[in-house]
Amino acid sequence: MPAVDPSAERRYVLTLSCPDTTGIVARIAGFLAEAGGWIVEAAYHSEEPGHSEEPGHSDPATGWFFTRQVVRADSLSFDVDELRARFAAVAADLGGEATWKVTDTGELKRAVLLVSREPHCLHDLLGRVAARELPVRLDAVVGNHETLGDIVRAHGVPFHHVRFPGPGEPKDIAFDELRGIVGDPDVVVLARFMQILPAELCREWYGRALNIHHSFLPSFIGARPYHQAHARGVKLIGATCHYVTENLDAGPIIEQDVIRVDHGDTTADMVRRGRDIERMVLSRGLRWHLEDRILVHGNKTVVFR
Amino acid sequence: MPAVDPSAERRYVLTLSCPDTTGIVARIAGFLAEAGGWIVEAAYHSEEPGHSEEPGHSDPATGWFFTRQVVRADSLSFDVDELRARFAAVAADLGGEATWKVTDTGELKRAVLLVSREPHCLHDLLGRVAARELPVRLDAVVGNHETLGDIVRAHGVPFHHVRFPGPGEPKDIAFDELRGIVGDPDVVVLARFMQILPAELCREWYGRALNIHHSFLPSFIGARPYHQAHARGVKLIGATCHYVTENLDAGPIIEQDVIRVDHGDTTADMVRRGRDIERMVLSRGLRWHLEDRILVHGNKTVVFR
Amino acid sequence: MPAVDPSAERRYVLTLSCPDTTGIVARIAGFLAEAGGWIVEAAYHSEEPGHSEEPGHSDPATGWFFTRQVVRADSLSFDVDELRARFAAVAADLGGEATWKVTDTGELKRAVLLVSREPHCLHDLLGRVAARELPVRLDAVVGNHETLGDIVRAHGVPFHHVRFPGPGEPKDIAFDELRGIVGDPDVVVLARFMQILPAELCREWYGRALNIHHSFLPSFIGARPYHQAHARGVKLIGATCHYVTENLDAGPIIEQDVIRVDHGDTTADMVRRGRDIERMVLSRGLRWHLEDRILVHGNKTVVFR
Amino acid sequence: MPAVDPSAERRYVLTLSCPDTTGIVARIAGFLAEAGGWIVEAAYHSEEPGHSEEPGHSDPATGWFFTRQVVRADSLSFDVDELRARFAAVAADLGGEATWKVTDTGELKRAVLLVSREPHCLHDLLGRVAARELPVRLDAVVGNHETLGDIVRAHGVPFHHVRFPGPGEPKDIAFDELRGIVGDPDVVVLARFMQILPAELCREWYGRALNIHHSFLPSFIGARPYHQAHARGVKLIGATCHYVTENLDAGPIIEQDVIRVDHGDTTADMVRRGRDIERMVLSRGLRWHLEDRILVHGNKTVVFR
Repeated sequence: MPAVDPSAERRYVLTLSCPDTTGIVARIAGFLAEAGGWIVEAAYHSEEPGHSEEPGHSDPATGWFFTRQVVRADSLSFDVDELRARFAAVAADLGGEATWKVTDTGELKRAVLLVSREPHCLHDLLGRVAARELPVRLDAVVGNHETLGDIVRAHGVPFHHVRFPGPGEPKDIAFDELRGIVGDPDVVVLARFMQILPAELCREWYGRALNIHHSFLPSFIGARPYHQAHARGVKLIGATCHYVTENLDAGPIIEQDVIRVDHGDTTADMVRRGRDIERMVLSRGLRWHLEDRILVHGNKTVVFR
Repeated sequence: MPAVDPSAERRYVLTLSCPDTTGIVARIAGFLAEAGGWIVEAAYHSEEPGHSEEPGHSDPATGWFFTRQVVRADSLSFDVDELRARFAAVAADLGGEATWKVTDTGELKRAVLLVSREPHCLHDLLGRVAARELPVRLDAVVGNHETLGDIVRAHGVPFHHVRFPGPGEPKDIAFDELRGIVGDPDVVVLARFMQILPAELCREWYGRALNIHHSFLPSFIGARPYHQAHARGVKLIGATCHYVTENLDAGPIIEQDVIRVDHGDTTADMVRRGRDIERMVLSRGLRWHLEDRILVHGNKTVVFR
Repeated sequence: MPAVDPSAERRYVLTLSCPDTTGIVARIAGFLAEAGGWIVEAAYHSEEPGHSEEPGHSDPATGWFFTRQVVRADSLSFDVDELRARFAAVAADLGGEATWKVTDTGELKRAVLLVSREPHCLHDLLGRVAARELPVRLDAVVGNHETLGDIVRAHGVPFHHVRFPGPGEPKDIAFDELRGIVGDPDVVVLARFMQILPAELCREWYGRALNIHHSFLPSFIGARPYHQAHARGVKLIGATCHYVTENLDAGPIIEQDVIRVDHGDTTADMVRRGRDIERMVLSRGLRWHLEDRILVHGNKTVVFR
Repeated sequence: MPAVDPSAERRYVLTLSCPDTTGIVARIAGFLAEAGGWIVEAAYHSEEPGHSEEPGHSDPATGWFFTRQVVRADSLSFDVDELRARFAAVAADLGGEATWKVTDTGELKRAVLLVSREPHCLHDLLGRVAARELPVRLDAVVGNHETLGDIVRAHGVPFHHVRFPGPGEPKDIAFDELRGIVGDPDVVVLARFMQILPAELCREWYGRALNIHHSFLPSFIGARPYHQAHARGVKLIGATCHYVTENLDAGPIIEQDVIRVDHGDTTADMVRRGRDIERMVLSRGLRWHLEDRILVHGNKTVVFR
């Protein structure tokens, strides 16, 4: 049974995306109104048909509709399971392509963090959880080095060390062990985890594995992005939080931010200063994921902030 | 008869605010769905009851609800006047305190600019109108100096010079003349107009007179804000776009932004560099006003960007 | 004896400010060149005479000169004490008002943190120290509550609890105890310490007590700034790092930053989101202090970033 | 004879770069002090040897030194030509690789703008020149369309129309005509000029042709960058001001900035909103060029802001 957070006002969060047509808002709002649902937040987005003009894009005949609704739990006379059961009928009316989900803020989401030796994102997330800034329960932290074990344990979170073989060696066994430890959480956070996930794990964790890349994607994909940025002489450096997919650093972007650098910043300065952006961008992306604010569509995200 | 802009896809923009209760979204969405209205954008905001905790705030028993809906004109079988007539019945159901408006993007809004000698905001707005970046028709520019007349006329816009008396002299006659020239436009933009509007004009133009103040309000109210900022040694300077009210620099804030300054910036540098922020903040505020994105509530704004 | 950090390349940092005149740069640069000093960084600033135009400012007949020079330790044939002795003669030439200092990056500066119950700035600083992002040794953390003791001790830093009396009670004894624990470090960081320092401590710690104020000063001085910001309806909220002086929230500003908020942000959201700015601004200010980048002049700072 | 701007306090600006060694600052500062030069601004930068770690970089045995000094003209007893003559001897001491320049703020720099049909950067620059924000004289604007002629002439600046052939046709004749009109100004500004300069012009105008590219380089090089940005789903879009070189969009970067976009922004919104960044970034880059704040080294810039 998931932990219940009694400190927050309990809410149900409904997200839905489907092909656009007239009357969807009315259908959903009508359903909620009938049930006496008190809507605290409501956001909508309509992706216009054929708005994308990238080469090779086959112009869709229809647009796409996205919504996120937040309802006070105490305004409904039934529980979250009943809400799901009743909403299923509404969603069915909206066509077979509709994707939807109802979550309950009373059930804390569970996260597993993957780390390597870089400590800054881990420290930041542990601090935020300790300060109750993020609605999450940390089930475990897994590291491919022992380095960060002590601080994790000091926060009362289990730490697991999985030994990865050197370059060129097969990593199947290590990833199998990792997969077993991670289990089935709501989100897997690659907090500067320096291993590339195998395709099977990318697929298994699709839509719930967040990575932080230390560049303003799509610039400087791959290794040592700050070195690439320094060599090119850019005047801003950035970081990108994205969902992991099989294409390295090419998954749907959730959040990005930048800071100004100048000629006085060495590569080492960029590495250090970039950490501030990595921390911020990753923690924002994680918060939005935990609050069900992100809807993935194709290789892009709708983020209802 | 207002000009019609045939280049844009015609849309009707509905804004409404009223005391919050269950079912408002359903009521409005149901009405639009029944009429076959294709909703292009929909935004909602619920101000929670008693969320304000400032001293002396009398906790309201109820929250407040705000919405903005954009409907494709060609999705309705009737015209904008009929839409207004029909929606009036919906609004009536939502209680006597509901405030609403329906505008038609096919009818270009009309603006009058008030200027003094500072040219940068005027140049910026003229350039944006010439580049068709702002959905507006400039009816006139009024200056209390002749200085900026030539550039205004070069843009094909009428320029009127109203002579203001010196300090200490009564300005009633000048303001009467100004009032007569301005007439009844959709928006009056004080683009660094250095005269303080009399109370009657503030009331007459309530909710449609935009001012740009060259500080990050509420810091540095009144005269020479950059000098005040320099004296205090702040590390960021800003600008604020707000609706004009009888209380100087204290009206509802629409938009603000800042830029970084440092010890090397003299007051003159701040004046110059601040202009970039003034231009941006004023043009954003004006755009949002023209697009009916701003709902005023008490001394605050809801801006559906 | 202070700890020596062998991991960094050792440098001597010279800062000086004095009345401006021709030839200061030549005098200092000549001295360093003669000694074979390899200058890694050099920054200068001349405050022009009478540039300040604030009311009541007595226009100085002369400007003021500021410099910061960083020299490779291994480029000099003598040690830091000898450098100080020799430079004293140079400074004497520059007049009696010259203020200067030479520090050695090989001697880690020592800090004491003062905290209350708000954990975010503390967690952030502990994480940065653990990640070796800040060139500092934490001598102690002092809290007026026990709450944050465990995490401090987990980082291997001594934690001291000083009990403060309730409102209205005299706090002399508590502050005496605090003063004794703090001792004489290079910097005292008020990391959301909720007690107002008595005037004697402000004077004793002048120029080395950093505070983080959770507003964009000079807006919203004093208590509950996020509530004030929410009530005013500002569109950006900020934080300010400044040196503590006897005038509450009015000391020389070191660093400020802001983030965007909108109508959807409740006061609680502002409190939470503002923490990100507080963390960043405080850690930047502390870094600059530790690296001797800040020169205080009157109530303003020159920050050579 | 160049125009003289009597409104500004006259200053001489000295820029120099050379291989780094001990004593350069002392040499230059000593020279200026001896001449009685009152230094208003002085900035230095040392590029450490071998700090670049990009692949294929041949580690230089020495670092590189850069400086910019601003001297009050009235503090010297001789004129700018004499300053150049005397400084040549100093520079000779610093080795054959030293590059240096002395300019006189009393001689307004001359610019030629190249435009196409996009009006926003042109309007912005004309407005800034009219408002005396930029220390420049506009000699001419050249367009490959007639569209923007009227506004240029309204500002009292000569406009030249050069007809360019369609795609696939040779453009030699058009570029020859362009080259003849442009002449030999201090700076050529490609203000959204949509033609790719031939290699000869890139070489002839090396270090004085500024381009504004409407993406955050190195992302989205080439055509239709906003479309590329929209397709990738980035959360920030940007603009880049750089010196033109033979490699398209790959010259030394002078300035960059970004703004936030979200799922609600169509490609058309990005095009419109990106203009604000283009205007700002180009005008900043141009200002720094005019004030001799930019030193080019390899494919990177040192910008003494």
